[in-house]
Amino acid sequence: MTSALKPGVHCISATPFLPDESLDEASLKTLLDYLVGGGCDGVVMLGVLGEADRLTDEERDRVLHGALDHADERLQVSVGITHSSTLVTAARARAAERAGAVSVMVSPPPGSAAGPALTDHFKRIAGGLANPVIVQDHPASSGVKMPVEFIASLYDLLPPNSIVKLEDPPTANKMSKLLELQPDFQVFGGLGGVSLYHELAAGSAGAMTGFALVEFLVGIVSSYQTGDIDGAFQKYEEALPLMVFEAQPGAGVALRKEILRRRGAIAHATVRQPAPKPDAFSLDALDQLLARIPDGVPA
Amino acid sequence: MTSALKPGVHCISATPFLPDESLDEASLKTLLDYLVGGGCDGVVMLGVLGEADRLTDEERDRVLHGALDHADERLQVSVGITHSSTLVTAARARAAERAGAVSVMVSPPPGSAAGPALTDHFKRIAGGLANPVIVQDHPASSGVKMPVEFIASLYDLLPPNSIVKLEDPPTANKMSKLLELQPDFQVFGGLGGVSLYHELAAGSAGAMTGFALVEFLVGIVSSYQTGDIDGAFQKYEEALPLMVFEAQPGAGVALRKEILRRRGAIAHATVRQPAPKPDAFSLDALDQLLARIPDGVPA
Amino acid sequence: MTSALKPGVHCISATPFLPDESLDEASLKTLLDYLVGGGCDGVVMLGVLGEADRLTDEERDRVLHGALDHADERLQVSVGITHSSTLVTAARARAAERAGAVSVMVSPPPGSAAGPALTDHFKRIAGGLANPVIVQDHPASSGVKMPVEFIASLYDLLPPNSIVKLEDPPTANKMSKLLELQPDFQVFGGLGGVSLYHELAAGSAGAMTGFALVEFLVGIVSSYQTGDIDGAFQKYEEALPLMVFEAQPGAGVALRKEILRRRGAIAHATVRQPAPKPDAFSLDALDQLLARIPDGVPA
Amino acid sequence: MTSALKPGVHCISATPFLPDESLDEASLKTLLDYLVGGGCDGVVMLGVLGEADRLTDEERDRVLHGALDHADERLQVSVGITHSSTLVTAARARAAERAGAVSVMVSPPPGSAAGPALTDHFKRIAGGLANPVIVQDHPASSGVKMPVEFIASLYDLLPPNSIVKLEDPPTANKMSKLLELQPDFQVFGGLGGVSLYHELAAGSAGAMTGFALVEFLVGIVSSYQTGDIDGAFQKYEEALPLMVFEAQPGAGVALRKEILRRRGAIAHATVRQPAPKPDAFSLDALDQLLARIPDGVPA
Repeated sequence: MTSALKPGVHCISATPFLPDESLDEASLKTLLDYLVGGGCDGVVMLGVLGEADRLTDEERDRVLHGALDHADERLQVSVGITHSSTLVTAARARAAERAGAVSVMVSPPPGSAAGPALTDHFKRIAGGLANPVIVQDHPASSGVKMPVEFIASLYDLLPPNSIVKLEDPPTANKMSKLLELQPDFQVFGGLGGVSLYHELAAGSAGAMTGFALVEFLVGIVSSYQTGDIDGAFQKYEEALPLMVFEAQPGAGVALRKEILRRRGAIAHATVRQPAPKPDAFSLDALDQLLARIPDGVPA
Repeated sequence: MTSALKPGVHCISATPFLPDESLDEASLKTLLDYLVGGGCDGVVMLGVLGEADRLTDEERDRVLHGALDHADERLQVSVGITHSSTLVTAARARAAERAGAVSVMVSPPPGSAAGPALTDHFKRIAGGLANPVIVQDHPASSGVKMPVEFIASLYDLLPPNSIVKLEDPPTANKMSKLLELQPDFQVFGGLGGVSLYHELAAGSAGAMTGFALVEFLVGIVSSYQTGDIDGAFQKYEEALPLMVFEAQPGAGVALRKEILRRRGAIAHATVRQPAPKPDAFSLDALDQLLARIPDGVPA
Repeated sequence: MTSALKPGVHCISATPFLPDESLDEASLKTLLDYLVGGGCDGVVMLGVLGEADRLTDEERDRVLHGALDHADERLQVSVGITHSSTLVTAARARAAERAGAVSVMVSPPPGSAAGPALTDHFKRIAGGLANPVIVQDHPASSGVKMPVEFIASLYDLLPPNSIVKLEDPPTANKMSKLLELQPDFQVFGGLGGVSLYHELAAGSAGAMTGFALVEFLVGIVSSYQTGDIDGAFQKYEEALPLMVFEAQPGAGVALRKEILRRRGAIAHATVRQPAPKPDAFSLDALDQLLARIPDGVPA
Repeated sequence: MTSALKPGVHCISATPFLPDESLDEASLKTLLDYLVGGGCDGVVMLGVLGEADRLTDEERDRVLHGALDHADERLQVSVGITHSSTLVTAARARAAERAGAVSVMVSPPPGSAAGPALTDHFKRIAGGLANPVIVQDHPASSGVKMPVEFIASLYDLLPPNSIVKLEDPPTANKMSKLLELQPDFQVFGGLGGVSLYHELAAGSAGAMTGFALVEFLVGIVSSYQTGDIDGAFQKYEEALPLMVFEAQPGAGVALRKEILRRRGAIAHATVRQPAPKPDAFSLDALDQLLARIPDGVPA
């Protein structure tokens, strides 16, 4: 029996570190509890926010198994497995499925381009998988532009219930075009939630992103899905100043970890180096933004 | 006597076209009246939103002179003069000053890099000018990254009262660092206003961007400048959904022209080709966003 | 009656400047005489080597008309007309044809992408033209990747005898694939001639590039075309050290102008700023390379 | 006692694969024998040509230890250790030194930029190392431009005898500038050897690249170093057609493996997917180029 992702909120998880930058496995547990408590349907380990490219293979395994163990049945656990080699990506996909991950997320490898070679890449990864693949369309991190026709063409060679995490702006337009071409794809938005309201209007199944105040993601999506469009917009409007602030290039991971730390979800805001750390000005701006959010963050 | 830019809002102007893509000089006048009516302090012709790179030299002249004639004393008129040749940029700068422009805006030429050659470029342009130069720091259009130390070093070789239009995110951080290094620079924010509130906190003199609902830019800046910080934030929060929507890569110029058309500021939303046009989905999203803005747009 | 480009060598022309960077129209004439004397079949004004993006519209006109007048019937004169606006490019195309240019060269505008909008761009430019269009496929300057299928699809909407200047490495492979898909396209190689031998093997009609020792381009192409493959290779091998040296990113225009100056083709090696100038080390390397070329350059 | 790299040729090694893309450890041994037989002074495992980014951590270990075991004292063995995390890179550096590698090669991580954070990255990696670090300056693969002043500034914080592999064209110019600023750096050229002759003139200690006919690299460098400048140039000129052909973007790894296979150095030309494979046209061009090289390759 194959799995499928629940519509709703699948939060991209941070990877917690101790001050010496080693893995903080205790905080991984509290972070997952935080996501459960915030109402998330699932979690995606080892994405961009998870600093996946700054881990060793052995650390990747510890993060994935740690998450699967602790989440238990409370969250659907997916995992990013992007690698430059088809062979290695395919091996990671099979290993993740065996370990219990509900789906695997794959970006086009750096330097690839929409075309037959990239199609083969996805086809080989899909071979022998029962569970869905999340195709991540995020040119800002991959450097690869995938036209909507190319993405649509992947559906038939991926496992049932496969997904597109669509992060190529303007996202809502591209979603609506993709769903015209291939209505069977399940589509989620990302990019910190900054276009979430429009993405839901375009047919998105929810949010797959790492905005730290997850209850806002959950609130926007569930309001929209139950028909309370005005309520969804109001929550979107309330969250947007922080969403925009977090989503600025070169700042997001550290700011999100800082919010998670203040809320008690993780013990340290440490980011693996080299990476920008928030300066005093940014932390002050963060204070102000959080203070303006109703029930935002304990001091 | 040299000029200086007033703190406040200097709107980046669109360049109106007739349906056959030729210049619409009548709409240029109504657009300037609209900006005056909206409370702008100045206007910047021939920036990115002005589709400057899609005009001939002769059309550039008509736009600049048309704007100077019609604005009269009601708006400070600045003009973008970026060109790949130092010689041509310098000639444009002198011509603009003679014609009456209060300042000229210059981006680093494509393919240049922070260093002595780019310093010489700015020095030669500044030679013989009395009026200020606006250094545009917008890597998304120029492709050129300028470290804050490099920008600060330009101050001494530019005319008095020169300005930085800082659009390299995270913008507020970079502004605060730039103003530490060189407090005499006047700094404005751009990028559609999406970080305007934080930029004002960082010391920005105002907004220099093309958000179509200019009364929001004016309201946010004047509230902040008169000490009504909460009022500034509230207007920022109200405007942000539309600001974020407009600022999506590959959509902004056409969407802004469409809003200007609906508000009667210009007769046609025509954008010079090749350029993306809004699809039905985007126009519908625009309808919804405008409907949610108090006193937004007449039907 | 429509025109067609002769197989052979169409040299990309430099634009000569006086030491103050103004146009050197006298040198434009001696340069054209040099190209005629070197055995070129044609010349392409206002390409990348022609520093087209560093000229005003008025200077462009002077260069094109000066070249047409002086070349007379001795050379086929083509002209680069790339611009960000379809409307302006189309107007330039018609003006060039009226003035007597045998063909016009068009790169995809910056920021465009292979797809329907770019197809429309070429279709509108082609409308009303009798003479061929040269599609320049040079991602290093345009930033635009055009798959071979896309380029092939342009043939039917362009005027008869249209051409592809193929400069997307590996060039010979792409040429052979393009000619399989659309054998009616005439294809020329560029990139300073560094792959000229292989391009001829792939079906190229000749060289369309700015290597300063044009007699080598002519010798390689005519040897190959008359069946003297070994002779072509030998000349290619002799020229290659200088070709590779000239073709290094960030050095080529100034080095080529320096060689043209030493050979008496132009009076000054001036390059419009900002642009790298050869340092003492490069000039010394150039001396050595020229000294090793049989009948290279007078001291 | 610290180590130092011998001037001469340190060949970048391919990583041999079986037809199913798994590691071919037998071929790794024959390849090292081939490099010894060709007269190389050293070998660099796990560079770009080594497809390092397409290996797992476990495979990296097997390649490095396999090379150290088999090379014995016949070659100096260096190893590429570039990773996005400082912590992981530093751990790899220490492990490589313990295992017996003579030096470790580090590129700036993707997304980094010349500045204090990148300086810290190198400083932390250098901490606790006795052996030299090779700073790889190859913007085409790293995406990071390092000004010559920045590279020079790294010298004081790296271990004694550290090296720059300078692959930012025009390379010979940049080498001569770097050696003016910091004459104690040992500098090697790369880029397939296409500028090797000029790099030696600029002060390069030799070649650190993967050109498959290593005896040409050895011949050029040793002729130059023993004062036979003309002999060096003649060999450079003979090798250049193949060097240029191999160095074309998107073709090199597969073509080099094909040559190594034909020469008996490895059993299979397999490249890990997704990666371009040479088409029939390229293989035919390769045949012709090899046939023209004296004593080139057995049929």
